[in-house]
Amino acid sequence: MKVVDKLNKLRELMKKNKLDAYIILNADMHSSEYVNKYYKERSFMSSFDGSNGTMIVTKDSAYLWTDGRYFLQAEIDLKDTTISLMKMGTEGYPSIEEFIENNLKNKTIGLNGSYVSYDFVEGIKKTSKVVSNIDLIDEIWTDKGELETSRIWMMPISLSGESTSSKLSRVREELKKDNASLLLTNIDDIAWLYNLRGNDLPITPVFLSFAYITSEDSYIFLNSNKLNEDSRINLVESNTIIYEYDEILPFLNKLKNETILVSFKNTNYSFIDAIKDNNKLINKVSPTVLMKAIKNETEIENNIDVHISDGLAVFRYMKYVKENYPKVEMDEYSLALKVLEYRKMDPRFYEVSFDSISSWNENGAIVHYEPTKESSKKFSGSGFALLDSGGQYMGGTTDITRTIALGDITQEMKHHYTLVLKSHIDVSMCKFKKGTSGMNIDMLARAPFWKEGLDYNHGTGHGVGYMLNVHEAPNGLRYKMVPERSDSALTVPGMICSIEPGIYLSGKYGIRIENEILCVPYLKNEYGEFYQFKTITYCPYDLDAVLVDELTIDEKNWLNDYHKMVYDALSKICEKDELDYLKHVTRRI
Amino acid sequence: MKVVDKLNKLRELMKKNKLDAYIILNADMHSSEYVNKYYKERSFMSSFDGSNGTMIVTKDSAYLWTDGRYFLQAEIDLKDTTISLMKMGTEGYPSIEEFIENNLKNKTIGLNGSYVSYDFVEGIKKTSKVVSNIDLIDEIWTDKGELETSRIWMMPISLSGESTSSKLSRVREELKKDNASLLLTNIDDIAWLYNLRGNDLPITPVFLSFAYITSEDSYIFLNSNKLNEDSRINLVESNTIIYEYDEILPFLNKLKNETILVSFKNTNYSFIDAIKDNNKLINKVSPTVLMKAIKNETEIENNIDVHISDGLAVFRYMKYVKENYPKVEMDEYSLALKVLEYRKMDPRFYEVSFDSISSWNENGAIVHYEPTKESSKKFSGSGFALLDSGGQYMGGTTDITRTIALGDITQEMKHHYTLVLKSHIDVSMCKFKKGTSGMNIDMLARAPFWKEGLDYNHGTGHGVGYMLNVHEAPNGLRYKMVPERSDSALTVPGMICSIEPGIYLSGKYGIRIENEILCVPYLKNEYGEFYQFKTITYCPYDLDAVLVDELTIDEKNWLNDYHKMVYDALSKICEKDELDYLKHVTRRI
Repeated sequence: MKVVDKLNKLRELMKKNKLDAYIILNADMHSSEYVNKYYKERSFMSSFDGSNGTMIVTKDSAYLWTDGRYFLQAEIDLKDTTISLMKMGTEGYPSIEEFIENNLKNKTIGLNGSYVSYDFVEGIKKTSKVVSNIDLIDEIWTDKGELETSRIWMMPISLSGESTSSKLSRVREELKKDNASLLLTNIDDIAWLYNLRGNDLPITPVFLSFAYITSEDSYIFLNSNKLNEDSRINLVESNTIIYEYDEILPFLNKLKNETILVSFKNTNYSFIDAIKDNNKLINKVSPTVLMKAIKNETEIENNIDVHISDGLAVFRYMKYVKENYPKVEMDEYSLALKVLEYRKMDPRFYEVSFDSISSWNENGAIVHYEPTKESSKKFSGSGFALLDSGGQYMGGTTDITRTIALGDITQEMKHHYTLVLKSHIDVSMCKFKKGTSGMNIDMLARAPFWKEGLDYNHGTGHGVGYMLNVHEAPNGLRYKMVPERSDSALTVPGMICSIEPGIYLSGKYGIRIENEILCVPYLKNEYGEFYQFKTITYCPYDLDAVLVDELTIDEKNWLNDYHKMVYDALSKICEKDELDYLKHVTRRI
Repeated sequence: MKVVDKLNKLRELMKKNKLDAYIILNADMHSSEYVNKYYKERSFMSSFDGSNGTMIVTKDSAYLWTDGRYFLQAEIDLKDTTISLMKMGTEGYPSIEEFIENNLKNKTIGLNGSYVSYDFVEGIKKTSKVVSNIDLIDEIWTDKGELETSRIWMMPISLSGESTSSKLSRVREELKKDNASLLLTNIDDIAWLYNLRGNDLPITPVFLSFAYITSEDSYIFLNSNKLNEDSRINLVESNTIIYEYDEILPFLNKLKNETILVSFKNTNYSFIDAIKDNNKLINKVSPTVLMKAIKNETEIENNIDVHISDGLAVFRYMKYVKENYPKVEMDEYSLALKVLEYRKMDPRFYEVSFDSISSWNENGAIVHYEPTKESSKKFSGSGFALLDSGGQYMGGTTDITRTIALGDITQEMKHHYTLVLKSHIDVSMCKFKKGTSGMNIDMLARAPFWKEGLDYNHGTGHGVGYMLNVHEAPNGLRYKMVPERSDSALTVPGMICSIEPGIYLSGKYGIRIENEILCVPYLKNEYGEFYQFKTITYCPYDLDAVLVDELTIDEKNWLNDYHKMVYDALSKICEKDELDYLKHVTRRI
């Protein structure tokens, strides 16, 4: 069925249900960033498959909101669909809330209340009527099949570093402050808390589940058939009572006179609706969010070890490309497979942490470009190859971007590359006081660009999970407060963040350089407590594209120190015949 | 009466009124930063006269909260008073709210509801009982006399740049969005809106008043006897109805079924309490706050002209000190008078914009140190003289700090001076994109300090009014969000801000360098709209304390360009015999 036909079918159903508008998302009951394909209603209805997109269909129009990462991709995907692209955060485009306020005042909007947050529904209820207990897409998408879930397995203490009982008692310590129980619907928090992993969602090793924690008890809701023996024992040992996934709503309906800590921003409308009248709700971010973000020593140690191996894989990709182009034909898609092949050489690797972005020249300017086998662009002439990729390993989650120069590139290209590198280094080497957030630090990343009237249309960095989401709240690097991202937490030791400034020249090329950085203590004195970043990504930058004179002495020193660290780490695990090339690419400048 | 006796008297009254605690502030009905002496209840009760301080007296203890600027001063003032100093924003000290929650749960707290914001009272009502309609201090402070108010005069269009009618219609345009009327209690907003000035408060040319603006009408509440003829005509011409100051509460009590825009954070409890049941309230910052902060062309032009004259006064002070010390005896207080004398040479000057901070060596480490005639320290040996001062002129409000080196200072002192200058310059020369706030930009000011494990315990900058408050919301430079300061607005063209990093070595010396900077457009292209700062303070820095090698090339160029601009401006208005010295202190480095 074509998109326009699906929209017409939806409009028939809207008419039948007396709805003026209908909201469609790729969303599950957990506010997940990436969802099981079973829940991809918006992709099905619009043909646009980006990870961020909200669609509103009215009687005669259809709109899709997405962010800067996806503007170019969405423009292509939405062609001939009659759906208007609404560019988030761009002047001239209303936000979803503004659109509803201006265009759907006193109108009736339909949506599936299990797939949107309580805050969102309450927000639009101020201006419109909302029917939240239907799902019209179900009636159109008749061939989507069953929800498939995967095996759930347990992390040994050598991977988790802390037992579930210990985590539960820390959570309860926090809950005590409010004398509250905790309703958890974020599945990465549940995976962290119970030291379990699964494979129900693409690229994130989690399993569909809910949890409810009281001062005495712990309840988990999941497909219990999928628990392996270890997992079941772990749950029993932490006194966790197991319910089936679909028993959550009846369970919630029965709660009475409880004080429940629950985040209205991250919890779906239907759940809050079920508990709000009979209980006292405390609208707060779950304490697990911050606990999970602050990695323990075991997690950090494993993570660094995994990153060294991951850096070797990307180094091998660089070596392969730089040594073989243009003798050997190359294209975007096959190079994404190439780096995957290198990653698979480490037995701890089990899946990518996000779909690889491998691009040549002008495709690099599309921030979230993903090549397919069919569309893959062949490299030709000179230019930039950009690879943004990462892995899920038994021991950590990685995310790294390297841009490499092939052939003769212009001075302007080198200047742009150096600018991105400067920004990347300036953040990497900064020192900051306790109380600083990514909103402060981001200025260091933007300053070199803004000075020249340049910018990049995405955040500078995101928190990274441990064997979990590659995008993890509550920390990040972003100069604007974006409430729905919840990534403006203070940066504290143990947090891991990406640092990935870039530059994108539409139709020409894109450059992005990304490492992961770990917040660690710097010093403590009468002026306060200071922190710094330790880079935990181990992979050379392409020095061929650097204009050394444009770096400050501090930046140059940092770069040389970094390359020495990379050489020391990779030389221990690479093959003998790779050593010369490694030495060359990590040379002092 | 001694402080302890006043406290005992208060405790008797508390007992009689069945209160467990009583809150005392220096506050009027307008949330003013500096208040008429009539309202200085906290100063009276505690002997601490800093501009920020909240006191809580319980049956057996007394506490006073103030911020980093005043820690040293408060420690001195509170000695032997039995009042404990509570250092705001310092680990180990609870906030006022936390203190109340932990120590006064279910207790009864008394306060004068006209002197505290609605938000504050609602906040403490969550844990405690509040009696808000009494003033026990009135019964102790029996000799405070009458409230004295001053003449109210009108600004001609050559000073205001925009008529009251035009301002009113812009305000109404904004109010239309909410179909609301506006209750204004911030007196600087009222002064701005009606183009009137007075002298009811120290150092700020405002007059005690309230205003209420509807889509049709405009009401002002003030001491109408004090209006001069022009002011009265201006009010009549803008169709403003005049009421007496004390008619506001009866007026508010009569409002029914209105939609009223009012800020719960800035409006006193008694007023909101009077209107909340019979009207629909919209809790929002008044649109006048942003309008007032964005200076118009007339204001900017006058302001720059005034700043040149103000810079000359401070240059003269520098010349006097540098040329005459140690030949001539110098002390802190007499130098504050000296610069005042120089400022008075401009007939547009009419009062200081804040009490001058003039200090020698160790007193410079007390951020808000104010010398008195009695306590004034004599200069001796070598060191730093710090002068932070400003003026109210017919044409603008100034705020400038210069630190000058006298005698032989150490390399460490020069390094610290250079560090402050670097920070000051890095902000002054930065470029930034629309959407940036002071929270982002502040990182540039802090980075040089944090790198060395140093910091200063105050904001980097504050908005500055035009012939109004020297501290003006909603813009500022501060890395942490401090909700009660409301200074995290996006920085946009027309806003004026101070940039004043510093370094303070307790018992040794303080260094601070401050200019005012105006946000102006930089460039606009496909990447967005970019802004920059234009410095509007015209006064040399002391180059004798600069370690040139520690400046980057960009910083050095900026400094030389600035000194050229200062020379060009001041050489036109200074005396002939000052030219050589001016040339010398603005020399290229």
